[in-house]
Order: sequence, then structure tokens, then C-alpha cells
Amino acid sequence: MMRRLALLLLLCTFSFLVNAQVITSPDKNFTMKFELTPKGEPTYQLTYKKKPVIKQSKLGIKTQDVPSFMEGFTVTDTKQNSVDTTWEPIWGEEKTIRNNYNELLVTLAQKDQKDRHIRIRFRLFNDGLGFRYEFPEQDNLSYFIVEDEHTEFNLTGDHKIYWIRGDYNTNEYAYTTSQISEVPKLIEKATIDVHAQVPIDTLSVQTPSMMKTADGLYINIHEAALVNYPAMHLNVDPKNFRLSSHLTPDAVGNKGYLQTDAQTPWRTIVVSDKATDILESRLILNLNEPTKYEDVSWIKPLKYIGVWWEYFVAGKSTWAYGTDKNVKLTDDPNKLTPSGRHGATNENVKKHIDFAAKHGFDAVLVEGWNIGWEDWFGNWKEDVFDFVTPYPDFNVKELEQYAKSKGVKLMMHHETSSSVRNYERRLDEAFKFMKEHGYDAVKTGYVGKIIPRGEYHDGQWMVNHYIYVAEKAADYKIMINSHEAVRPTGLHRTYPNWIAQESARGTEFEAMGGLAPDHATILPFTRMMGGPMDYTPGIFQTDLSYYNTGGNQRVNTTLVKQLAYYVTMYSPLQMAADLPENYERFPDAFQFIKDVAVDWDNTWVQEAEPGDYVTIARKAKGKDEWYVGGITDEKARTATVRFDFLPKGKEYIATIYADATDASWDKNPQKYTIRKVKVNSKSVLKQPMAPGGGVAVSVKEGSKQDMKGLKKI
Amino acid sequence: MMRRLALLLLLCTFSFLVNAQVITSPDKNFTMKFELTPKGEPTYQLTYKKKPVIKQSKLGIKTQDVPSFMEGFTVTDTKQNSVDTTWEPIWGEEKTIRNNYNELLVTLAQKDQKDRHIRIRFRLFNDGLGFRYEFPEQDNLSYFIVEDEHTEFNLTGDHKIYWIRGDYNTNEYAYTTSQISEVPKLIEKATIDVHAQVPIDTLSVQTPSMMKTADGLYINIHEAALVNYPAMHLNVDPKNFRLSSHLTPDAVGNKGYLQTDAQTPWRTIVVSDKATDILESRLILNLNEPTKYEDVSWIKPLKYIGVWWEYFVAGKSTWAYGTDKNVKLTDDPNKLTPSGRHGATNENVKKHIDFAAKHGFDAVLVEGWNIGWEDWFGNWKEDVFDFVTPYPDFNVKELEQYAKSKGVKLMMHHETSSSVRNYERRLDEAFKFMKEHGYDAVKTGYVGKIIPRGEYHDGQWMVNHYIYVAEKAADYKIMINSHEAVRPTGLHRTYPNWIAQESARGTEFEAMGGLAPDHATILPFTRMMGGPMDYTPGIFQTDLSYYNTGGNQRVNTTLVKQLAYYVTMYSPLQMAADLPENYERFPDAFQFIKDVAVDWDNTWVQEAEPGDYVTIARKAKGKDEWYVGGITDEKARTATVRFDFLPKGKEYIATIYADATDASWDKNPQKYTIRKVKVNSKSVLKQPMAPGGGVAVSVKEGSKQDMKGLKKI
Repeated sequence: MMRRLALLLLLCTFSFLVNAQVITSPDKNFTMKFELTPKGEPTYQLTYKKKPVIKQSKLGIKTQDVPSFMEGFTVTDTKQNSVDTTWEPIWGEEKTIRNNYNELLVTLAQKDQKDRHIRIRFRLFNDGLGFRYEFPEQDNLSYFIVEDEHTEFNLTGDHKIYWIRGDYNTNEYAYTTSQISEVPKLIEKATIDVHAQVPIDTLSVQTPSMMKTADGLYINIHEAALVNYPAMHLNVDPKNFRLSSHLTPDAVGNKGYLQTDAQTPWRTIVVSDKATDILESRLILNLNEPTKYEDVSWIKPLKYIGVWWEYFVAGKSTWAYGTDKNVKLTDDPNKLTPSGRHGATNENVKKHIDFAAKHGFDAVLVEGWNIGWEDWFGNWKEDVFDFVTPYPDFNVKELEQYAKSKGVKLMMHHETSSSVRNYERRLDEAFKFMKEHGYDAVKTGYVGKIIPRGEYHDGQWMVNHYIYVAEKAADYKIMINSHEAVRPTGLHRTYPNWIAQESARGTEFEAMGGLAPDHATILPFTRMMGGPMDYTPGIFQTDLSYYNTGGNQRVNTTLVKQLAYYVTMYSPLQMAADLPENYERFPDAFQFIKDVAVDWDNTWVQEAEPGDYVTIARKAKGKDEWYVGGITDEKARTATVRFDFLPKGKEYIATIYADATDASWDKNPQKYTIRKVKVNSKSVLKQPMAPGGGVAVSVKEGSKQDMKGLKKI
Repeated sequence: MMRRLALLLLLCTFSFLVNAQVITSPDKNFTMKFELTPKGEPTYQLTYKKKPVIKQSKLGIKTQDVPSFMEGFTVTDTKQNSVDTTWEPIWGEEKTIRNNYNELLVTLAQKDQKDRHIRIRFRLFNDGLGFRYEFPEQDNLSYFIVEDEHTEFNLTGDHKIYWIRGDYNTNEYAYTTSQISEVPKLIEKATIDVHAQVPIDTLSVQTPSMMKTADGLYINIHEAALVNYPAMHLNVDPKNFRLSSHLTPDAVGNKGYLQTDAQTPWRTIVVSDKATDILESRLILNLNEPTKYEDVSWIKPLKYIGVWWEYFVAGKSTWAYGTDKNVKLTDDPNKLTPSGRHGATNENVKKHIDFAAKHGFDAVLVEGWNIGWEDWFGNWKEDVFDFVTPYPDFNVKELEQYAKSKGVKLMMHHETSSSVRNYERRLDEAFKFMKEHGYDAVKTGYVGKIIPRGEYHDGQWMVNHYIYVAEKAADYKIMINSHEAVRPTGLHRTYPNWIAQESARGTEFEAMGGLAPDHATILPFTRMMGGPMDYTPGIFQTDLSYYNTGGNQRVNTTLVKQLAYYVTMYSPLQMAADLPENYERFPDAFQFIKDVAVDWDNTWVQEAEPGDYVTIARKAKGKDEWYVGGITDEKARTATVRFDFLPKGKEYIATIYADATDASWDKNPQKYTIRKVKVNSKSVLKQPMAPGGGVAVSVKEGSKQDMKGLKKI
């Protein structure tokens, strides 16, 4: 009896071994093991420096129309491969990115579906794991419907998690920091009111999902290359500390429609024992495809101002021109009833163009220039904007010429109100209109519930729409900055004219209830893992009661923290969001915004802890200039900057923009100091930051004359 | 006590009278009474020649977002108006149409919604009633969602009804004739298999709904001017003989999204004690808006042949070029695996062009010319066709030139597979492609389930799509013949380039199970009340076993009945659907198809009974030529044609195409006689028709020489 048992065990072990495969990361820190369960379910597990990160976790796709890809698999082939290359992004945080991984490609077939196979491709980098499901073209598999994806992430314990609730329509929630086990009791409180929200009714959180283990390991779960598939949220099992994929459904409850050759997006797990490594990870970009465009010369990072913040704070102006409550696109704009409070007037836009020209901004965004703003909101209205009909007080040609004469670009605004058929129908005409009038960048908006009704912002249908718009825009050499779109997954590598996105709770919410002082220390670890954010920083007048429009609202940062955002919140498209007149009140601080680069040769994350602080240094692209930003949450902290990224043996002038000693986000937010010092590669700055404050540093070459009298740091 | 009661009664009567309004038709045959119930519910009732047709029936709209328009109404205004004008359609059954009605416009407000009002507009013609709900622009009503419409049609008894089941996606059912009370027991049997069907789960039938009362009154219920609203089906209460509106929902279950100034389509009730009057009614056209187009010179009725019927019967050819099961629009068509059975080859198309040129047809339709047919069906595939990429054996330029040299137009085919976003995205490019290659008409197809998923063929979203396509096509001077679109409601008056539709079970089903011999006697009373049908008649080779492709299938008519269809099935776009070689076998009968007009000065319905027979005479537009068609169901009958429509005192030559005495649809369908006789305005033809047969007559002027030896009828 014992013998037979032993034999049985041996056989089990044997079968177990055949179906198991192990790869390590190039630096050997990571080990990923693929194996099948006795039922033939694919699983993977991940260790980092010999500690388990992801315990054995199942993989599978439930389908309609064809048998599911869940169990009964055998491994019919495996391939391993190693890659170590570099590539240059069109724009980015680094001039050169290393793509270094070991790959395992497992081919799986089911006993009862022998003529059919799928693949799972794992890529193990020095900063983590990416894997995806692949459905090769084959005789017996062409079309199928994804009913659900069952990808598990079995965590090793009750980690700390920085989370927002899963929602099919919006990412604009405030973050909650808690243990995984605490999610259930906090989820309702975390579900703050956001327009058009559709919170997922199972316990779930959004990706990028940032976690920290009790022993100091940082884990980030997200996805890369979200194309022709719905966005993934994560179901949370708060007892077993298991996360699992939750795909966004379509109008009839299906998740996706695939045609072979097809693949899912990559599921990504970035891991390190240093938080700074998480922010320096380029794993998600590496898992995206190189750009599809042959000519990218027209894609240029830029800094802009806009007719925008005054709509939130100044109380004097509105997007809408008229007071009418019922507007049709066939209406004559001249017959609207003017409110006298319209923001996008010729005069106001010219004022902004003048300011942009004077201070070296590339562009001026103008929102509220086109008919439809009177009744665009909340009516689920299909023919809501036409994108080509200006209000009577916005003279397209006159402003085009004026901007041109000042060497400034106007930036278009296309609020779609999520009426997507309407937008797609008018897209060619809208883009032609832009090019005819000198616009080469557009901010798109997707406020509200989607039309076609029943679809969601995060569903496969909309995912394909955003890419359609990006590609169509590229045909016209137009750059896109999308707001309220699905959160990014590194697709800006493939579509570099999709230059930035919002897809999170940004600065506008400082005027609508405020952002927690730790918000911007979490974003780089969450939302921004997927790509640049048009966070619209630069608010100098943080106390909004200044505008006498009632309430006691404030932007919950110091002025200096707003400067630091230009470095900590990476984007090739940066707004100086405050009103021009506020910048004119603080010209010395404004100088940092004027100076700071928007494209970089290198990035060095100096120090970071999600929810607490982030300090980053970057080298301006093609220039011997460096910029440093440090931010802290509600606690005063000292930022440490090591200037060892500077060329050795040379002195530079550092201009340090610092919170004054008695500054804080809620008291004295506008008290700051600016000092110039000499720095070299051995310099270290220890700079106190106020509660809710930060520090910003520019480093430039200086003549001997400039250096004269400057102290060392 | 009695006094108080009397007073109360008097008050009630008074209030009753105030809220009641009566109008009559211009000829006084109809009386329509509007009144409010004690609960303030709007109602109407209709009598014809003093007989009730519609008993008191409620009207109302249930809404979301705003209080419903169901009850609590008072009449705040009424207006009456009389109209008697004529107008000329761009093309049609008559050169001049009289528009003669008395109108009642009732304005209604609710006590608890005093600042809000709606209107109900009734137009009472000599052929029936049209009414609609109107929502004027006003301060307190701009946007609302239609949750449902509650329009009742309370019938006076258990009428005979010619019906197909209510279905959100398809009209391609076979008709059932029964009493209303019998619908429940027959509905499952009536629900035959139709691709992509979504039978309504309440007991319901489609419109146009044709009924006949026990005392010989004919009643047709449909709608006119279906714009920006879902199509209406009719719920059936088989005990109370009550029909009520059942609107097609959208993906989230709502029925419609309206912005004031808005109105529903007209609900139409055409009534007569003569069946022929129903077919001569122009009420639905009169309730549509005049054309929106300034230039209509490019819109021309036409007769065409096509590479089409062989896909159904001949067994030799297919739409698809390749045998591949997985095709992408990015694939190189030259890399497809040819089946050798492709129908739309250069050679075959040229053969058709030659035939069309030889016999005077305007155009040749070619289906299966473009990549995608390999896997277009049943996969709910989004990127299914691009409408611009031909198969390798279809040379667009060569065929364009060949057709041009022969004076024949090619007709484009755009099967969308109901992938509507895909079609809209490619529409401009597709229409440009057409114009560049000399096409000015397109047959569109909507086979399958709609994408965006969850929408239906008959919903508001798709209703708007079809009109969008018609308007966009007009921009390119392109005519549209839509298949599988929502059934027509007279919109061809407004959009005369939307020249025909299928939207019913047409000739193709003769090759897929057959059509009942009474089918074509019902269609003019049902589907065709809304507009012309591309029925694709003209099948000479009715016994399909002829093709030796297996089965014992047949077209369930005689050859002559197929000729008669060119008159009984009104359409400005008529196909000669059979294979050219079959026409060459019967050149004498084919002459009728070559001769028959497709546009008319006048129409005289000679005799008709739904389900039994239809005989119609028409005068060719601008010509002294007349054509007569008569059809019968499975029973042999004698058609009676009174030639009193001919100018008095003049003799003409009538060519009579008749079933042979021993002909019948199932035996000897191809036996016919052709004889020429002299006719004048006093002539009467009594022509026997075979079971499933018909009669066709052409009447032309003739020289004395031609007339010589001809007998009188």
C-alpha cells in the first residue's frame, strides 16, 4: 500500500514538474514559476529576493460561444527568451530606456479541445513581471466573447493599500490608505460623489493599485497596452488578501469581443524594496509597442496657460455664453441670450495670448469657445457640441492671427460630454477646422454618461474610441490631451501624440472640495504609473476666499509645492493653471514655472514614500539644466537632494524655491524664500518643507560673474 | 338631495363638455372626439360613417427625469384648422397628391405642473386619422427621457388581423392571418427563425398592422415620420381587443431621449369600407415633411439587375472570395485563399453589364465585391467591412470604364453587418469612393445584431442612424436602398434619395423556405403602407430544383405573378432579380419587365383584399403608357380590370401576360400566354389567374398598322 502511494506521489510530482516552468529576472532578484494545478489550471507565482510576492495564483479566461480557457490544460510547448535592448522615446522622463527581461512563453491546450491552443507570455524584468494571454490565429479559434477574466494576484498578507474604488466610468476619486482587510468598512465612505460614477458593486479597487507590505516591499499592479479590451479593475478578497481581475462590461454585460490573433493587455506587477524604484520603473512602457507613426517631428512637449481656472474660482466667467437652457446646434449663436459672464471672449483670450507671449509659454487653452455649453451637462444629450461653431464673442480668425503674430499657439478644446457617436461623426470636420485655424493640440473631455448608452468610459468600446481619436488626430498632426478617458497604460509610447491625460482627481478638485495634502504623493505611485497626467498645477492663489465668491475653499498646498509639481508630476504637457494676474503678483516664484523643462534626458527619484513625500530630480532634454521638485503631505519634512547626477568637477547655480519657515498649506501658503547657491556633484541639499509644502530647485550653468558671491549649498 | 345631485351632474357634464372636442373629416365620414377622463387623462375616439372604429382610448407618455404626461390634465387651449392643398412628390405612385384634412390642436397642462404644457395634434383626413404628441420649447421643459408611450387603440371587436410578431430587430417574419383573440395561441408558431431576431416578450405585433372587422371595415394602424424616436410595435390585449403602443427600447431599457421642441411620430389609422382605399391612401406621406433637399435632379427611379440571386440558388457562386475563416481588413486581399466560386468577378459583372445594356436596365448591383465576406456573419464583428477594398478579381476601375462604355451604372453594395460605428466611421470615405468610381446608388444592409451592442434595429439610435446615412448620402448625391433597416414611415417624402427599403420578408426567402402564396397580397396592406419595397421580383425560374443544388425548393408563384409584382409592389427601384440566362429563355415574357415603368403619374387600385388578391393599374410618368398587375393567393381567381382610366375615345394596344389555363404556382408555373388586344376607356378585362398566379398588362399607343387585326378585349 505504501509503495503504491509512493508511486502515486512520484507520478504526481513528475506530472507537476513537467507542467512547471521557472524563470528569473536578469538580475536574479525575481523568480517567476508557472505551473498547472492537478485540474490543469494555469498558475503563476512570484518571488523577489527570495520573498514571496504573489503566491500561487490562477489564470484563466471565461468565454462565450467557445469553451472557456479555464482548466483542463496541458503544456504543449514552452519557449524562453532573453532581451536586453534600449530605445528612445519620442518624449519622456529619460532619453534612453533599457528593455531587459527574460521571457517564458507557455503554449497550452485542453484535452477536450485538442485542436485549439492559447499562450501565456511572461516577461520578467528587474523591476517586475508582465504577463498576458495570447490567442493565436488557428483553425479552431477565430472569434470569441470574453465573459470574464479570472486572473488572480494572491498576496502574502494584509498589505497597506492606496486605493480608490472600482468604477466603470470614473477615476476621479480621492485616495484612501488602509490595510486590505479594512477596504470593506471604508468603501462606502470612499465612494464620494463623482459625476456619472458607476461604482462596481463587488468589493473592488482600481489600478494602478499601490501596496506596501509589512516588511517594506512595494508592489504595484496595473496593466500595459490596453488595446481592444476593457480596463481591468481588481476585486478584493479582504480575508484571503486575494486580488482578481474585474473587467469593465459593455452594454449587454459582456467584457470583450476578440478575433484571433489576439491578446489581452499585459498584467503588470512592479515590485521593489525601494519606493523610488517603483517611480523609476519603465516596465509598463517597455511592454507597449513602439510608435506606429513614421513622422513624429510634429509631436512636441509644451507648456501652456489657459482660460480655465477662472471658471472654477474667479466667479466672473463661465464656459457658457448664454443663459439659455435649451440650445440646439442649429441655433444661431447670435440669438443666444448673453449672460455677460462669458470667459472665452476675444478680449480675454488676447490678454492670455499676450501673457503667454511675454512669458514664453507655447500655447493658450481656451475652453468655452463653442456653442453648446448652456445645456451640455447632465442631459445625456447626443447632439451637444459641433466643435466648429464659435460663440459670437470668440472670433476664430481674429484670434488665430493675433496668436500667430505673438508666436503663441491656441490650444483647442473638445468637450464631448461623452456623446461619442456625435464626436466621431464630427471628428474629421473638427480636426480640419483646427488645422485650418492653426491649432495643433486639443484637450478632449468625456464628462458624463457615455452615448451609446450603456457603454462605460472603461469598456472595450471606449478604449477603442480613444485610440481611434489618437490615430485620427495623428493623421492631422494633432496632439491629444484627454480628460475623463480611461486611465493610461503606457500607450503614449505607441501613440506619442496622445501626449497626456487627466484620468484622476486633478487640480480642478482643489476648487471643488479640495484635495488631501497627501494626494499628490500618492498619484505618482498610482495613476501616473500608466502615463503622464495633465494635473494642471501652478496655483499661486491657493486661498480661494480671495475671490470673494463665497465659501472658504482653498487649494491644500503651499505655493512652493505647486512649483514642485512641475517636476514630481511628470508630463510633457504642463499647464500654468492660475490666472495671469496671480503670476504677476509673484514674478520671482513664477520664474521657476517659466524655466522648468517639459521634456527630459534623465530622471533620478531622490526619495519617495507613497502618501508621505516624493522628491525627484530631472535633467532637461538636450540642455545642461536640472530641475528638482520635492513635496510632502500634511507633515513638515526635510527633503534631501543629492546632486550626484551633476557632471563631476563643475559648479552650477542652484536656485532654491523653499517654503518659508512659518509657511503651511493652511496658513501662510504663499510665504516662500528663493535663494541661489553653488552646487556640484558632491552637494547635498537638506531642505525643510512646510506642512503641505515642497521645494523646487533649478540648476543651471552660470558665468563666473553670476557665481560671484554665491555660497555653497 | 336630488337638487344637489342634479347640480353635481350638471357640473360634471359641463366640465366634460369643456374638455371635449370633436372634429370631422372634410367629407364628414370620420368623426374624431377628444376628451379628458375625470382623472384628466387624454382620450380620443374615432368613428367612420357613424360606426365606431376606435372606442375611447387613452393617450399618454410616461417619462423619466420629469413628471409623466399621463393624467391630471386640463385643456388650456384648442385650435382648429383646415387644409386642402396638393403637392408633387419627387417620384411616386401619383404625380400630384392631395393633402386635405381638418386639424385639432389641443394644449394640455397639469394642475400640479402648471408652468408646463404639451400638445396633441390630430389631423383627420378623408382616409383616416393621424395624431402626435408635441412638446413645445418652454421654460420648464427642455429634456426628458421617454420611459414608455401609452397610446391605446381600443378596437370594437375581435377583428381579423394580418400580423407578424413584434420584434426589436427584424421585420422578416411570415404573416399570420387570424382573429385578434387567436394571436396568443398562434404567436409561438408565428415566431419562425429569423437571424438576429429579438421577439418582444409581451404579446405584440408589428405595424403597419392591417385589420378587417366582421362588418367589412378595413383598419390600418402605423406611424408616419419616424424621426428621433423608436419604432412603435403594438401590444395586443386579446380579450379587450385593445392595441397599445410598445416602443423599442435602447441598450439601457429607455425608449427615447427628447429635447423640446419635440414631437413623436404621427400615429396613423387609415380606415375604409373598401380595401382599395387603403392602398390608395396617401395619409402617411401627407403627414411627412416636404423634402429637405433643394436640388433633387439627381434622384431618379431606376430598374436594375444584379449579381445576387445566384448566391441564393445557383450553387455556383458566393459573396466571399476566399475560404478563409478569419479575415482582417488589414489583410492583403491577394493573400486570401480563393474558393474559385466567387460571384463578383470581372467576367461575371461584365456579363451582367452587357445584359443590362442590351435590355435597357439602368444599373447592375454587385454584391460580394469587397473584402470581409469570409467571416462577416454571426461573429458580432466590429471591423467587418471597409467598403473600399475590392477582392482581387473585382477590378473597380476596369468595371467602372466598362459600365460607362455601355451606358450602364454599377450599383454599390454596403453590407454593414449591423456594425454601425464601423460604417459611420467609414461613411465619408465609402461615399467618396463611390463617386470617384461612378456609383450613384447603394444598397445598404443591416444583417445581424447591432454594434453598439444592446441597441436594436428599431430603436431611436438606429432610427437616427438611417436618417444620418440618407442625409450624408444626399451630400454626395447618392441614393440609398436600405435592407434590414427599420420599416418605412413615409420618410421618402422628406429624404427622397432614401429611395427604397426591404424591411420585410422579400424574394430572398423564396430561396430560403419559400413565401406563402398570399404573402404578396398582404404586403401592400402592411409593410408597404410605409413606403416602397425593394422586393426584388422577376424570378422566372421558380422551380429551384432546376439548379441541381439539392432540395426541392421553389418560388411559390407562377411566372406571370412575378411580372405582376412590378405593378402591385410599388417601388421606384425595381430589380429584375433572376439570372440573365433565365430571362433569355423567356424573351417574350421578359419584355414586360423591360417595358414596365418605375415612376407613375397615377395609380388606380382596381380590386384588393388582403390575403387574397390585389389588382392595380398605373400610368407611367410622363408617358401615355399604362401597366396593370394583378395577383392572387393560392386560389385561382379572375382579375377584373376596368380601363376607364384611359383617355376617352381613343384605342390602345394592351398586351396581356396571363397564366396558362393549366398553370399554377406549384405545377406549371412557367406556362403563360401573351396576347395583344385593343382597349379603350370602356374596356373591361376579366382575366383568370392561376392558383398562386397573376396577370400583367401593358397598354401603349399603337399605329393603325399595329392595331390591324387586333381584337377588342
